[in-house]
Amino acid sequence: MKGKIILEEAFNLPHLAEAQAKQFAYEPDRAMCLARDLADIEGRIAAMDEAGIEMQVLSLSSPGPQGISDAEEAHKLAMESNNYIAEKVRANPARFAAFAAVSMHDPKQAAEELTRAVVELGCVGVLINDFQSSGPDGNTMLFYDNPKYDMFWSTAQHLSVPVYMHPRLPSKVIYDQLYRGRSCLVDAPWGFANQLSLHILGIATSGLFDRFPGVQLVFGHMGEHIPFDLWRLDHKLDRDRFPQMRMSKTQTIRDYFATNMHITTSGHFSTRSLQGAIAELSSSRIMFSIDYPYEDGLLEASTWLDNLPLSQPDLSAIGRDNALRLLKLDRVPHNLKPGLTMGELQVGGLKGAIYPDEASHLRRA
Amino acid sequence: MKGKIILEEAFNLPHLAEAQAKQFAYEPDRAMCLARDLADIEGRIAAMDEAGIEMQVLSLSSPGPQGISDAEEAHKLAMESNNYIAEKVRANPARFAAFAAVSMHDPKQAAEELTRAVVELGCVGVLINDFQSSGPDGNTMLFYDNPKYDMFWSTAQHLSVPVYMHPRLPSKVIYDQLYRGRSCLVDAPWGFANQLSLHILGIATSGLFDRFPGVQLVFGHMGEHIPFDLWRLDHKLDRDRFPQMRMSKTQTIRDYFATNMHITTSGHFSTRSLQGAIAELSSSRIMFSIDYPYEDGLLEASTWLDNLPLSQPDLSAIGRDNALRLLKLDRVPHNLKPGLTMGELQVGGLKGAIYPDEASHLRRA
Amino acid sequence: MKGKIILEEAFNLPHLAEAQAKQFAYEPDRAMCLARDLADIEGRIAAMDEAGIEMQVLSLSSPGPQGISDAEEAHKLAMESNNYIAEKVRANPARFAAFAAVSMHDPKQAAEELTRAVVELGCVGVLINDFQSSGPDGNTMLFYDNPKYDMFWSTAQHLSVPVYMHPRLPSKVIYDQLYRGRSCLVDAPWGFANQLSLHILGIATSGLFDRFPGVQLVFGHMGEHIPFDLWRLDHKLDRDRFPQMRMSKTQTIRDYFATNMHITTSGHFSTRSLQGAIAELSSSRIMFSIDYPYEDGLLEASTWLDNLPLSQPDLSAIGRDNALRLLKLDRVPHNLKPGLTMGELQVGGLKGAIYPDEASHLRRA
Amino acid sequence: MKGKIILEEAFNLPHLAEAQAKQFAYEPDRAMCLARDLADIEGRIAAMDEAGIEMQVLSLSSPGPQGISDAEEAHKLAMESNNYIAEKVRANPARFAAFAAVSMHDPKQAAEELTRAVVELGCVGVLINDFQSSGPDGNTMLFYDNPKYDMFWSTAQHLSVPVYMHPRLPSKVIYDQLYRGRSCLVDAPWGFANQLSLHILGIATSGLFDRFPGVQLVFGHMGEHIPFDLWRLDHKLDRDRFPQMRMSKTQTIRDYFATNMHITTSGHFSTRSLQGAIAELSSSRIMFSIDYPYEDGLLEASTWLDNLPLSQPDLSAIGRDNALRLLKLDRVPHNLKPGLTMGELQVGGLKGAIYPDEASHLRRA
Repeated sequence: MKGKIILEEAFNLPHLAEAQAKQFAYEPDRAMCLARDLADIEGRIAAMDEAGIEMQVLSLSSPGPQGISDAEEAHKLAMESNNYIAEKVRANPARFAAFAAVSMHDPKQAAEELTRAVVELGCVGVLINDFQSSGPDGNTMLFYDNPKYDMFWSTAQHLSVPVYMHPRLPSKVIYDQLYRGRSCLVDAPWGFANQLSLHILGIATSGLFDRFPGVQLVFGHMGEHIPFDLWRLDHKLDRDRFPQMRMSKTQTIRDYFATNMHITTSGHFSTRSLQGAIAELSSSRIMFSIDYPYEDGLLEASTWLDNLPLSQPDLSAIGRDNALRLLKLDRVPHNLKPGLTMGELQVGGLKGAIYPDEASHLRRA
Repeated sequence: MKGKIILEEAFNLPHLAEAQAKQFAYEPDRAMCLARDLADIEGRIAAMDEAGIEMQVLSLSSPGPQGISDAEEAHKLAMESNNYIAEKVRANPARFAAFAAVSMHDPKQAAEELTRAVVELGCVGVLINDFQSSGPDGNTMLFYDNPKYDMFWSTAQHLSVPVYMHPRLPSKVIYDQLYRGRSCLVDAPWGFANQLSLHILGIATSGLFDRFPGVQLVFGHMGEHIPFDLWRLDHKLDRDRFPQMRMSKTQTIRDYFATNMHITTSGHFSTRSLQGAIAELSSSRIMFSIDYPYEDGLLEASTWLDNLPLSQPDLSAIGRDNALRLLKLDRVPHNLKPGLTMGELQVGGLKGAIYPDEASHLRRA
Repeated sequence: MKGKIILEEAFNLPHLAEAQAKQFAYEPDRAMCLARDLADIEGRIAAMDEAGIEMQVLSLSSPGPQGISDAEEAHKLAMESNNYIAEKVRANPARFAAFAAVSMHDPKQAAEELTRAVVELGCVGVLINDFQSSGPDGNTMLFYDNPKYDMFWSTAQHLSVPVYMHPRLPSKVIYDQLYRGRSCLVDAPWGFANQLSLHILGIATSGLFDRFPGVQLVFGHMGEHIPFDLWRLDHKLDRDRFPQMRMSKTQTIRDYFATNMHITTSGHFSTRSLQGAIAELSSSRIMFSIDYPYEDGLLEASTWLDNLPLSQPDLSAIGRDNALRLLKLDRVPHNLKPGLTMGELQVGGLKGAIYPDEASHLRRA
Repeated sequence: MKGKIILEEAFNLPHLAEAQAKQFAYEPDRAMCLARDLADIEGRIAAMDEAGIEMQVLSLSSPGPQGISDAEEAHKLAMESNNYIAEKVRANPARFAAFAAVSMHDPKQAAEELTRAVVELGCVGVLINDFQSSGPDGNTMLFYDNPKYDMFWSTAQHLSVPVYMHPRLPSKVIYDQLYRGRSCLVDAPWGFANQLSLHILGIATSGLFDRFPGVQLVFGHMGEHIPFDLWRLDHKLDRDRFPQMRMSKTQTIRDYFATNMHITTSGHFSTRSLQGAIAELSSSRIMFSIDYPYEDGLLEASTWLDNLPLSQPDLSAIGRDNALRLLKLDRVPHNLKPGLTMGELQVGGLKGAIYPDEASHLRRA
């Protein structure tokens, strides 16, 4: 498929890339590769062309400002990162867009930086890495379902830009309690989604979508465990047991997936899980993404998507159209073309009919 | 779900209803009920209200003019039927719309009657019952993939109205060859779809959609066997074997499902088959329909749809939005409201969360 | 996956292969290839090894005896073919097994030849190519739901071997009525399944499975259109409309799929259709098959199966275990090993975890 | 469906039931009902008959001994509970079976009590409520992936009985860190599975199934979030990143689902999620269960199962056969009948064919 758009793709400021890459405890060579790939933006275009990706929406690699417990330092990093990436996008608006980074220590400051990043710098949304580290020992976790963050959410609604919730490593207290002796589970394999799903559901059950119906939340990795368990979740959010739950008495989490939440496929290239997510949410709430450079190549994931046993309308919605609409990428300076035909997208046709699915490459070879 | 639209719903002219009902060899009582239900239009409104059906698109019961081998008689029936149903629709434009009937003996005459029915009488499309019976003994079958029907198809494209292909009983020759001793298989259980799928695929492989890209074909019963076998069909329409096949060399039957073909659920209320059809075609090409009065009640089928394990966007697309868009029912005189919210459609919400699917009625009781 | 078994694989007698290959109107070169491949048996072993196929169950290419309207000629061909293939199997019992061919002009003769083929020659079942051509002009079609064939069915039950129903081209009468001007639809793309599904359903509705509960019917091409339409079929086989239908009043066609019918994937390598068939029938009634040499390679189809998004138990059931059990291939002279572990089958493991599905080959390359 | 078996069904000792029921913060009336239902065993039989449930496998309600940080007290409760329930089962071995409770403070003691419960009391397995509370303040969490528990696991393997892992509330430390202001998420809606999935995956990645290949783990609630995320989990358990991970280098978590893990439907009656679980694990690893009395009725969940759009073989496997085999319920004193036919199970038949799925009740009414 041509014209694909991906939106959970990391970069880093050159002077921070190396330290960043090391945090996930990769062996030295892999860490060096990651550092290099995170810092290189122009170099991605060739691989994007090869993989049929028209646009990559860039965001500062996790944990970004959320990892800095000093409020001033966190804010400085956010501003520096936003200024840096805005310039990169300006140089290639047809191939790159950006999500802003914000410090979440102070809701007012976060709202102001978001406004600056969108209005002055042209960011198409904001990406937040789970909770904000805070406190003298950095062990305090700030969560945004706390009502004091309403000002931030009302600003996102006012600017009409989506908020991408991205995972990060847990606090030292949580690590010591749950991951000692199981460090392989603390990040991408399991812990990331355990932590982030709780934050997302905290936001939904706080009634935030009732107070700010225009807020659009996006999260990756095929929904951070949530889609497959929607039924039990709604079934057990029993209004008789939880009279003080602030979420609307007539709404379900499933309802919000039709109005306020979206997921992406970043780092989760499973045909079955995607089919399950489509059944739960419909193709209209799912967007293709890769999680570059933590997924080590744009081609493998793109080949997976291009050969999926999906209908053409679902494939074009997930691969391009949903993201184009949500992020308004048809506007200046990006000017992506909406409503491409199946022919222009190179979706369908005879190639797909002869050994589609897994074996298709044999005919291409 | 409120606001449902159904579009394979039969009526008959009062003076013809009884003979019509008898053709399907029902026991006398059932035949009498069918005759009565086919002739009664106003009486349907109460059941529509009970079942959450806002609009029913009416069509003359099979075989209509296609069953009359005398060209003049066939045309007379078409005109009489169109005049009759147009009046019924005029009396209740908010609850009823109509598909025109046409004699297919003469493509030019069919095109003219279709134009009259749409432009002067306000029909929203046309329904044709498979092949046109012809010849002195009525055993000649006229099929519309014959190039001489191009004038009819170009008129449908020009008027921008869909053509609904409905099944009918086969000719005596076919019956004698294939159904002797198996008469239980000749109509709805199997033969209907065997005959009609061949006609539909004859149309597609004739290249008609390449010559008239604006033609929109609709067929019921979950796709008349076609969606589940799309892969093998396209895989075996081998261009090397069939050099003279007129269909575009770069297109597949699957491709046409994204641009020129739609299916409905009429008489096929299977959760699995619908899920399979969504996987093959996407929810954007599927529309709810019942096949009243041959399906003996609007409530059973509506309860099936309302309790399906589908996402809210898929449910509203299949239950209402796709039909509203394809038939332009938001225009005068019908004025249906587009873009209803999940709340207005009563889709989702707590009811769905507590014992959805099969057991939901236990809580309603 | 290692140890795969395939069971709709054609051969031909060397002196008949060429004429046979030509019947499907392939261009000359392709026809020559087919003729060569149909006649070559030993030569298949290398490709089987490459594709992880342990055993191929061979059958005389369609139409075989069913295409011969002279009863004596038909019977002679059946005997010649059975003697020929039995010898080939004897030479390689670990890699080949065979289905018998029988003339269906005379049920008694068919039963006797089936008995000889199974008891004396070691055939593991019988394959019949749809109706038996008969009559002076060859236009009479004999169908086996006729009660006079009970003797044949009771013999198959007594011998406890499955009956594989394979498609063939329709009679000239049917061709003239339905396929004139649409010859591309007459065989594999559509007509094959239209014809054969009607024969299979004629058998089921005749009550044959009630009279002979031990009969096991197998048919290929993902079920010849039947699985996806089971619900409507059973819903419309209305006992009030068809009081004289001989099938048990308490049984459905779906019920027989749990006790008397099986399908294979021959020539229909669609991930979605297979998933749909599993949902309708369960993995326990589905067997992998290819339709060699009409599908031009064992590797493409095997690669499709090996990379399917299926659970390991479903994959081993469909790829090997179901066929081994139904055909009793663990007995002499075949001695296939039952109960192989996932490790022995090379199903699952890390390979599957890293970019499974479509993109897996990229890592293998 | 007749003959259903359910296996995550709670009871409590009469003198503990009330306190137990209160822990989940239900309103007083609901708490009183729960207490009464937990203590009543004989009274369940009438409801089981009505719902077509032949057998209920009983277990001490969560947290049981795991909630008691005093080792001696915990062990006393386990013994008392095992003696009590064994007597109840002895009175009705055709309708009830039991899972043992054990204190997990001391692996040797746990192994001995498990042996006593199985060998002397006839328990068919053991149910453990997540981590064992320990330490003076009760805040220490003991997890069984710690190698010192190998003796317990080797005993379960030796006795050839499954270990059911059931959720419980987290420690106060975890609650304070993650659930303050979101108490509605701490138990069944989300927290239960977040906690327990981590424990289960800790066990799997510890290599326990490699050391004790005979261990069979069962967990409920449609797999505690795991099935839908298997692909990402295995993809991210990157052997290069985690060289010291003790799990076999050639195995995946998905592999263990084919050999050592099973899930149940307790408290998660979602048609879509079950279909997704079947696609990931196959029907052979899934068992029906309800979670009575926390799910307030056996009939609703049973009606859901009985009307599911599943094939007959899958339905009988999930509803009865898998549990009968895993728990060896065909042995004395239970003597359940294996290999019941679809007719004996009342699975399939005409009822299912006419308005199956959601609307079937309308015809029953």
